[in-house]
Amino acid sequence: MKIAIIGATGLVGQTMLKILDEHGFTKNNEIILYASEKSSGTILSTETKSYIVRKLAHDTIEKDLTFALFSAGSSVSQLWAKEFIKNGTIVIDNSNAFRRNKNVPLVVPEINANEINLKTKLISNPNCSTILLSLPIHTINKVYKIKRIIVSTYQATSGAGKRGIDDLINNTTNKFPYKIQNNLIPEIGTTLSNGYTLEEDKLSYEIKKIINKSSFTLSATAVRVPIKNCHSESVNIEFYSPININNIIKILSSTKGISCSNNISLPMPLLSDGKDEIFVGRVRKDYSTKNAINLFLCGDNIRKGAALNAIEIMEYILKTYY
Amino acid sequence: MKIAIIGATGLVGQTMLKILDEHGFTKNNEIILYASEKSSGTILSTETKSYIVRKLAHDTIEKDLTFALFSAGSSVSQLWAKEFIKNGTIVIDNSNAFRRNKNVPLVVPEINANEINLKTKLISNPNCSTILLSLPIHTINKVYKIKRIIVSTYQATSGAGKRGIDDLINNTTNKFPYKIQNNLIPEIGTTLSNGYTLEEDKLSYEIKKIINKSSFTLSATAVRVPIKNCHSESVNIEFYSPININNIIKILSSTKGISCSNNISLPMPLLSDGKDEIFVGRVRKDYSTKNAINLFLCGDNIRKGAALNAIEIMEYILKTYY
Repeated sequence: MKIAIIGATGLVGQTMLKILDEHGFTKNNEIILYASEKSSGTILSTETKSYIVRKLAHDTIEKDLTFALFSAGSSVSQLWAKEFIKNGTIVIDNSNAFRRNKNVPLVVPEINANEINLKTKLISNPNCSTILLSLPIHTINKVYKIKRIIVSTYQATSGAGKRGIDDLINNTTNKFPYKIQNNLIPEIGTTLSNGYTLEEDKLSYEIKKIINKSSFTLSATAVRVPIKNCHSESVNIEFYSPININNIIKILSSTKGISCSNNISLPMPLLSDGKDEIFVGRVRKDYSTKNAINLFLCGDNIRKGAALNAIEIMEYILKTYY
Repeated sequence: MKIAIIGATGLVGQTMLKILDEHGFTKNNEIILYASEKSSGTILSTETKSYIVRKLAHDTIEKDLTFALFSAGSSVSQLWAKEFIKNGTIVIDNSNAFRRNKNVPLVVPEINANEINLKTKLISNPNCSTILLSLPIHTINKVYKIKRIIVSTYQATSGAGKRGIDDLINNTTNKFPYKIQNNLIPEIGTTLSNGYTLEEDKLSYEIKKIINKSSFTLSATAVRVPIKNCHSESVNIEFYSPININNIIKILSSTKGISCSNNISLPMPLLSDGKDEIFVGRVRKDYSTKNAINLFLCGDNIRKGAALNAIEIMEYILKTYY
């Protein structure tokens, strides 16, 4: 089997390669790495192998790829995904390019992998903040019907790529519109006519597409904070009927992919970096209204919020259809 | 007139001295600075004068002080405030010691200075996050009756004093239980039996004491972020009846002490540091329910959130009763 990573030199691309290696895919499969002309020739290494990154071009695309994992931004996906699909390659795209396309499933494997069928050639990977939020929300919503969600995010600079982290380290403004050192920026992405930013709009839109037939509404505030890696979210959840806090903690802590406890440790970047789980904690009754709770969550936005989700989609397809 | 600062070498104490100087109080009044034995002998300077810090002790307390501004922690206030009061000195206390005492007014001058009368000898200064939130909330609540507030905070390390900032700079854990560099800590103060931290409980309790006869509820999540100075808050406000967003922006922007705009600049630490105003922005309709909005605010927690509020209380008393 041949697997390609498009945008291999980016933070998500490199983490995809790392996870492919950890999950044993580099042993018996051929991994082909693509990037822009600028990055072509770069050598990326796993524990056991080294790969030379190719320039993405018509004549460098392998025709017999089983999977192509895209993480090179919307414009690259829009331009190149079809080139791979027409060869029969299954494209899993981490960009915003096709997420709102009704014919393209937007998948968090633990929730809606069943939207993928044998003929599916293009799957969208959701936004990082969406992935981290949607699994806990889905888990709770299955037992207690959710009415309304209010979320405030604490998003790390890695969400804006390596140049985002560099702005934090070097106190520059190459990626962000303002300095991020000793600062936060309560605006991620373009501001739309309704006053919400694209990032906030993604959260509202995507979670409802992923959790099909959901009956809740969501309002988001997305904030960039001066942290290298791992996104956190402060989440208020209102329900249609009474809930039991201890039961919610029990349900969350017994869900694969979630680590939940009010006692052991706090969900925070320090303990989430490089981890596969979404960490949930501070689950408590909201006394400001009937039937509501607050919780806090944190996860590695590059790994769980992007690369791992894409590879778990691939693994679902392999397990189900191959 | 003689004015004392107790806890003069702390971040708030030093800012009190700076503001006293800026407001002309150092010219014709005697300023006396107190601190712990460890800090006594320290020399603090304004633009024009230098002061030697005294050790706080029975025999160093001046008997003819008009005002004593306390900012040395609850235990110092509990131990020493009465010593000053019995001499007829008016104590303005920045600690948590007396805030919940029914006989002690908890004052944000722009809101409830009228709770102070000629006989008042002890006034509590609210928590920093409370001060920054309460003026916008009061301003809006006067025109559109608020039903429920959900707030998530982004609190700077200076809120934990100089040792908090040092932990951020030096990547140490002398003040905080975890490293704060490249991390956030979603727990400020002791966790109470209801699952909320003391900081979150302060916000809920204090805002309702300040905004008298308020009919709203409040639920808070308080988070420490790796920023030197200035607290931010993501605020969701639900109302009893329909509201007009543009009118709310107009009301906020025409309120003394608030700078509000959805266009000019974002509320953020970078632009709030050292400023007197509470910066409010991103005021927008919350589409997840009827009659609700989101907004984001930021202010200098040491200055507007503590030192300036205390001095404005003093100035109110001077203007009204002297």
